[in-house]
Amino acid sequence: MGQDNQRQDQWQVITGGVTAPKGFTGAGIKAGLKASGAPDLALIVSENDAIAAAVYTQSQVRAACIDYCQQQLEGHPSARAILCNSGQANACTGQQGWEDAVTMATAAATAIGTTPDQILIASTGVIGQRIKMDPLLAHVPQLTTQLSHQGGDAVAQAIVTTDLVPKTYALETTIGGRPVRIGGIAKGSGMIHPNMATMLSFITCDATVSPGLWQAMLTRAVDQSFNQITVDGDTSTNDTVIALANGQSRTPAITTPGPDAERLEAMLTELCIFLAKSIARDGEGATCLIEVQVSGAVTDQDARQIARTVAGSSLVKSAIFGRDPNWGRIAGAVGRAGVTLDQSKLAIALGDIVLLDKGQPQSFDPIAAHTYLKQCSELSSQAFAQQILQSTEPVNDLVGADNTETVERQTIAAESLAHPVKIVVSVGNGAGTGNAWGCDLSYDYVKINAEYTT
Amino acid sequence: MGQDNQRQDQWQVITGGVTAPKGFTGAGIKAGLKASGAPDLALIVSENDAIAAAVYTQSQVRAACIDYCQQQLEGHPSARAILCNSGQANACTGQQGWEDAVTMATAAATAIGTTPDQILIASTGVIGQRIKMDPLLAHVPQLTTQLSHQGGDAVAQAIVTTDLVPKTYALETTIGGRPVRIGGIAKGSGMIHPNMATMLSFITCDATVSPGLWQAMLTRAVDQSFNQITVDGDTSTNDTVIALANGQSRTPAITTPGPDAERLEAMLTELCIFLAKSIARDGEGATCLIEVQVSGAVTDQDARQIARTVAGSSLVKSAIFGRDPNWGRIAGAVGRAGVTLDQSKLAIALGDIVLLDKGQPQSFDPIAAHTYLKQCSELSSQAFAQQILQSTEPVNDLVGADNTETVERQTIAAESLAHPVKIVVSVGNGAGTGNAWGCDLSYDYVKINAEYTT
Repeated sequence: MGQDNQRQDQWQVITGGVTAPKGFTGAGIKAGLKASGAPDLALIVSENDAIAAAVYTQSQVRAACIDYCQQQLEGHPSARAILCNSGQANACTGQQGWEDAVTMATAAATAIGTTPDQILIASTGVIGQRIKMDPLLAHVPQLTTQLSHQGGDAVAQAIVTTDLVPKTYALETTIGGRPVRIGGIAKGSGMIHPNMATMLSFITCDATVSPGLWQAMLTRAVDQSFNQITVDGDTSTNDTVIALANGQSRTPAITTPGPDAERLEAMLTELCIFLAKSIARDGEGATCLIEVQVSGAVTDQDARQIARTVAGSSLVKSAIFGRDPNWGRIAGAVGRAGVTLDQSKLAIALGDIVLLDKGQPQSFDPIAAHTYLKQCSELSSQAFAQQILQSTEPVNDLVGADNTETVERQTIAAESLAHPVKIVVSVGNGAGTGNAWGCDLSYDYVKINAEYTT
Repeated sequence: MGQDNQRQDQWQVITGGVTAPKGFTGAGIKAGLKASGAPDLALIVSENDAIAAAVYTQSQVRAACIDYCQQQLEGHPSARAILCNSGQANACTGQQGWEDAVTMATAAATAIGTTPDQILIASTGVIGQRIKMDPLLAHVPQLTTQLSHQGGDAVAQAIVTTDLVPKTYALETTIGGRPVRIGGIAKGSGMIHPNMATMLSFITCDATVSPGLWQAMLTRAVDQSFNQITVDGDTSTNDTVIALANGQSRTPAITTPGPDAERLEAMLTELCIFLAKSIARDGEGATCLIEVQVSGAVTDQDARQIARTVAGSSLVKSAIFGRDPNWGRIAGAVGRAGVTLDQSKLAIALGDIVLLDKGQPQSFDPIAAHTYLKQCSELSSQAFAQQILQSTEPVNDLVGADNTETVERQTIAAESLAHPVKIVVSVGNGAGTGNAWGCDLSYDYVKINAEYTT
């Protein structure tokens, strides 16, 4: 708690999402790519060429957009804009898929007046389907005319597939006496949907930071956030996190490790963790958010691996759905995580309720443990239901931090993440710690994923 | 198919399970360990000290019985008997659990007139619970009086927890002109049941084989069978495979690699694969058996890893439950298996229906693919339902290969495995091949694992 409070003093939550940082505009429109007619084309633009960092899926089966971004950023870690379509994943589409990727990047470059090597692209949707290029190309000019400093929410809505709610967050801190802002959006849920297998996150920042440092910060932040969530263990062909830093805050350049770099990285990490938790909470069929906190490991990496394994266990996930304090399953998942440990030092708690200590079962009140699980889920579900309701309403000119509606939306989004089921695991006396997040496994997960016909 | 036929010529299926090989007796009784009152104590005894090999769970959280067996076999790879209880797993039970393990082994040794170091033990049931030692110790003498050459089925029934059907198999071949037999039983299903997390298999053989060779054969056979099945990815604290070879066939001793060793190993592998498939088919909530065949990898290990990843994917499993030929999910699972591959060489088929070739989607009849999935499941489910019905009937003196009822039971057990959903994956031009088995993910999986209160 002390650490949480200390961290919160370092920044404040602001509105605006990816268009909150200075010099960024965004737009999201309906281009006719999705059968549902929902928004499906998004553009984020920086006034100037921004420093760009990215992290991609580890999958050996990768979409054309991943190859494209990697090739662009290899030469120069810089970008002006990100163009993203939803509806078709452009994965397993061969040479034609590559050509479509080049074509869409070129169209965006022409529309905003830059070169294609300053454009990054992302796709999400059905694997094996080409992007509907005609409607996409026809709508790129309209997209650029709608670019706005208030476009953050429209962008967040246009990149989702099966998410129940859009995911957006922004933070502000002070560096060298001036404000520095960071904004981000994400989509997930669909990472486990039929053929809609993608987690995307786009992050904007107006700090001035050197490319190598920015990439290193992003990699570490992703390791503690997006790489620590699991809905069903399935990695996608299109997973991408892109972070742009455009220097428009006109704060001192951050080029070496130090207090300023640490401050920026902590804020970036906080943003990524918020978005990652939002994805886990919106996992298909989820009724709650699960947070696994592991301590006492030899290294942070070991702790994170154990946390991920517990969060990803189908047995643990179904027990939580059943509101069952079944610590045997948690112990089983810890044991198979691939990390050497001494089981006589193992301790497991649900919230404050200790279930196992020094490898020995503890007597506990199963009703109290059941009630804890039930309450976490109910509190989270109430807020999440409100979020879903709100997200069906149109975006009402969400301008600035004073907009009451926007602030209320953000408060409710935070509330849906504020009551995770906490699984607290200690595996020894080491200094290594790590968290992971997931959701429970419900009937609806099976329903959503089985009752579908290709 | 040619290979299958050739293999089948090498041996024949016989009745008797673990008591089919010469010199082995078995018994299974109700000792009052399970709340349900079902059989829960099993003993397998060899007339003489047998060569013993074993493979254990990789989990860092291990039951006391695993530590006990490992310690016994380290000194001398030999055993006269296996005593197994179901009901309590004796895992996470600390020093007391260890003492209970020693006590139960000592009781079995006294009852059959040998030393405790010739006894191997196994437990399955609720994690964190001590074995009910009083009823166990009270029933060991009765268990020994019931030892019989026809006890194979009783043993198979006493080791299960939540399995819907017992799993037993036996094969016979000829070495040096004389019959050599191998028998095996297994339990699984419960590997994914609330707190009943164990896969056990006990194998008996009357060949004469050197300890090192026998252990090597078992390790390789397990790698191709029990290590290639997945129900939900959760490994248990108690997983154990024990194989005894007592030499009672009086066939030439197998002490070096060569034709006889290959023949024995092939039969052992076939037995393990049959039992492993039986476990996958009986996975909680399963409506079909899934077989993933991977070829074209650089090594067999790579191919097996890809096969396991596909068989374990929740997305693939729910698609199969929905009878949906969703090849994008299969491609996704192949890509994240951790094996380097060239996606332009990837091919995926469902049975004979090619869905992806050279990394490109193929046009196929989705109705035909749906029908294939539906038929596989229906044929398998019919036989499996018969198996479940039969297993509720008492064991009627199943004596020898001429017993019509026993032969019919075996035929139906084989039929329930004869119609797997075949997912055929080729990843390149390498010589590496590997199979894995699993089951679909149904509503009942969630139901079984959520609707339980500790």
